[in-house]
Amino acid sequence: MPDWDAVRYRRFEDDRTRPSHELLARVPLAGAKLAYDLGCGPGNSTELIIARFPEARVIGVDSSPAMLEEARHRLPGAQFVKGDLAVWTPEEKPDLLFANAVFQWVPNHPATLKRLFGGLASGAVLAVQMPDNLDEPSHALMREAAAQGPWAAKMAKAAATRGGLPEPASYYDLLKPIASKVDIWHTIYNHVLENDRAIVDWVRSTGLRPFLDALEPGEEDAFLESYRTRLAKAFPPRVDGKVLLRFPRLFIVAERA
Amino acid sequence: MPDWDAVRYRRFEDDRTRPSHELLARVPLAGAKLAYDLGCGPGNSTELIIARFPEARVIGVDSSPAMLEEARHRLPGAQFVKGDLAVWTPEEKPDLLFANAVFQWVPNHPATLKRLFGGLASGAVLAVQMPDNLDEPSHALMREAAAQGPWAAKMAKAAATRGGLPEPASYYDLLKPIASKVDIWHTIYNHVLENDRAIVDWVRSTGLRPFLDALEPGEEDAFLESYRTRLAKAFPPRVDGKVLLRFPRLFIVAERA
Repeated sequence: MPDWDAVRYRRFEDDRTRPSHELLARVPLAGAKLAYDLGCGPGNSTELIIARFPEARVIGVDSSPAMLEEARHRLPGAQFVKGDLAVWTPEEKPDLLFANAVFQWVPNHPATLKRLFGGLASGAVLAVQMPDNLDEPSHALMREAAAQGPWAAKMAKAAATRGGLPEPASYYDLLKPIASKVDIWHTIYNHVLENDRAIVDWVRSTGLRPFLDALEPGEEDAFLESYRTRLAKAFPPRVDGKVLLRFPRLFIVAERA
Repeated sequence: MPDWDAVRYRRFEDDRTRPSHELLARVPLAGAKLAYDLGCGPGNSTELIIARFPEARVIGVDSSPAMLEEARHRLPGAQFVKGDLAVWTPEEKPDLLFANAVFQWVPNHPATLKRLFGGLASGAVLAVQMPDNLDEPSHALMREAAAQGPWAAKMAKAAATRGGLPEPASYYDLLKPIASKVDIWHTIYNHVLENDRAIVDWVRSTGLRPFLDALEPGEEDAFLESYRTRLAKAFPPRVDGKVLLRFPRLFIVAERA
């Protein structure tokens, strides 16, 4: 997959940073010496962790060199390292593993979460947020547009890039045997966006990427127009002409026993 | 309806106060001179509002004399008044109308929300949270137990006490024409409870009340057992023997234009 579009991603920084805020607010630690920000992206969440735990060493981990470069530019005082979460292991035992909007991209992520949580010391915290939106119109229509066009064959793999998330009870059963407490919740945001084109822009730097990457040069405009036309029907304008993008996210905060 | 069971309600104070915390965290006010806590109950949410706006006059409003007495005992410095939200109007224009878990009981509450929001000055905030759980097994099974027993006839009215909530888009269209901003989200908590009996205890002081109030003396045990048996099937014990009570809540924060 080509590298992430760091500039486009930052256009939606406020709405996108809110889940990090809300996840961090539920981390039950009075202080921290060492915290990792897994899938740190351009450092939005890293900045929040530093503000919450100013005394901590905070290390951001990401697989994208472009994101790491943005993050280093933004937070020259923090440390950023390249890593693939499927195999990554912290060098020292941290007080906090924070992972906002990244584990949905890790194949069989429950096993990875269990491995990383198992490696924590007693009292340390794993805090995870993942979008849980594959059944939403924004994503179902992406797959529909992919399946109904000259690009259908090569899109099949992209549509299978991410599977839906397991139920909260499944994460509870996974982590509770080695946890003192596991708190799991969903928040379903309704982002106020200008119109259907803004929905395309929103998902373009994230969920839409595997689809766009599978297209031949020159096919992108037609695919995006097919997708946008479907969005226009599913997201009628509200009283002020704007659209509400429903966006469910899953949150997990587990304390190691 | 008999008065609310203030003692039972407070047993679940932490889990129940969390939505107030999260609602208040989204109120975009730097300060406040006057705030009303509508449906203040025993004062849990009033206490949070006072902590957030220590300089404000905070007035709790509730229809239950027992709850108001509890609240006055808890917060001797605050002011508490009896009121029915369907007709209540603030005496002075407040900076904040805060309403946690009360408007679901007000008939045709959207009209009341619109009336109260319309009466606010520019820049003031309406912040509302309502349980949105009538389609959850915890509540569907309540209606099922009510419909299948010797008590079915007299329970019909209780089952109709509350209607389901409108969609987020509906509240957006209702408030946006006179708002500078409307933020609407759901959070679906998964409360960790000991067992199915604990679920009965949880809903007993709230959603189950209209059903229990409709029963003849002596029928309560049989009805509760019928309900609990259904819960036991719908909420299998997790890996640690506990059950997860899925509990969706709707949040609205609107700023008056």
